Amino acid sequence: MIRTATEADVPTIHAMIHELAEYEKAAHEVESTPEQLRAALFGEHPAAFAHIAEDDTTGEPVGFALWFRTYSTWTGTHGIHLEDLYVRPSARGAGHGRALIGELARLCRENGYARLEWAVLDWNEPAIAFYHGLGAVPIDEWRIFRLSGEALQGFGGAA
Amino acid sequence: MIRTATEADVPTIHAMIHELAEYEKAAHEVESTPEQLRAALFGEHPAAFAHIAEDDTTGEPVGFALWFRTYSTWTGTHGIHLEDLYVRPSARGAGHGRALIGELARLCRENGYARLEWAVLDWNEPAIAFYHGLGAVPIDEWRIFRLSGEALQGFGGAA
Repeated sequence: MIRTATEADVPTIHAMIHELAEYEKAAHEVESTPEQLRAALFGEHPAAFAHIAEDDTTGEPVGFALWFRTYSTWTGTHGIHLEDLYVRPSARGAGHGRALIGELARLCRENGYARLEWAVLDWNEPAIAFYHGLGAVPIDEWRIFRLSGEALQGFGGAA
Repeated sequence: MIRTATEADVPTIHAMIHELAEYEKAAHEVESTPEQLRAALFGEHPAAFAHIAEDDTTGEPVGFALWFRTYSTWTGTHGIHLEDLYVRPSARGAGHGRALIGELARLCRENGYARLEWAVLDWNEPAIAFYHGLGAVPIDEWRIFRLSGEALQGFGGAA
């Protein structure tokens, strides 16, 4: 039901990235190409990883999880940041989301990773309820800051 | 003034991790050992990296940045998550923090990374003001969820 992604999954994962971004009302923010995805997941030094959820009957991909490793100076261990979790609407309610997170939780236990983390949009109440149901807790006292675009390009006086 | 960390810096970085956690009122949460830090930064497949800020005159380490690579399915590129940024109190106000972030911004530009991100405690007003001054923006619409401890160990029916 859950398997690691292969290079042949790149077009499907790229399509699902767009489907997820549409749901997140951010389709216009997706600039990634299948080639970039292929390089990140299957290049010489992969720093991103993906798992696929398959339909039990047809074997068709119905969802994916894309993640990378983190490091905590408090726990001393690596962890997993789940960057994207998506299940196609037609396949929802069948446990694919829970199974994808379960596989990453298993990887954490196997490798001694102390934390499995992800971000959710604050208006996405169904997802938030689902995550609470899994036993995950919101880390509300931390705020994320981002340097990007012109602020990043020009930082420190560079062009 | 800023240099990449070497294995000889591990005890100093570990000491500064504790100093930072004390400032963050979380000293009791630091469980990491120097050995874990050494493995993460200088093991066979490092997934965490560190830079050291040195005093211009004495060459003594006065601060550090510890970071890892991220991946965004929207930008299609890797990025940097700055896990820890710390400058010792006696060396503050001399530009070390800005120089450490500047070095990571330079690495982002050099490698085509679109985002440099970090988390800050919501009560840490001096840090928040500093980050705004750098041109960084808070990503307020996203909430972080974490699965850890017993919820992670027991997820999916495992022990």
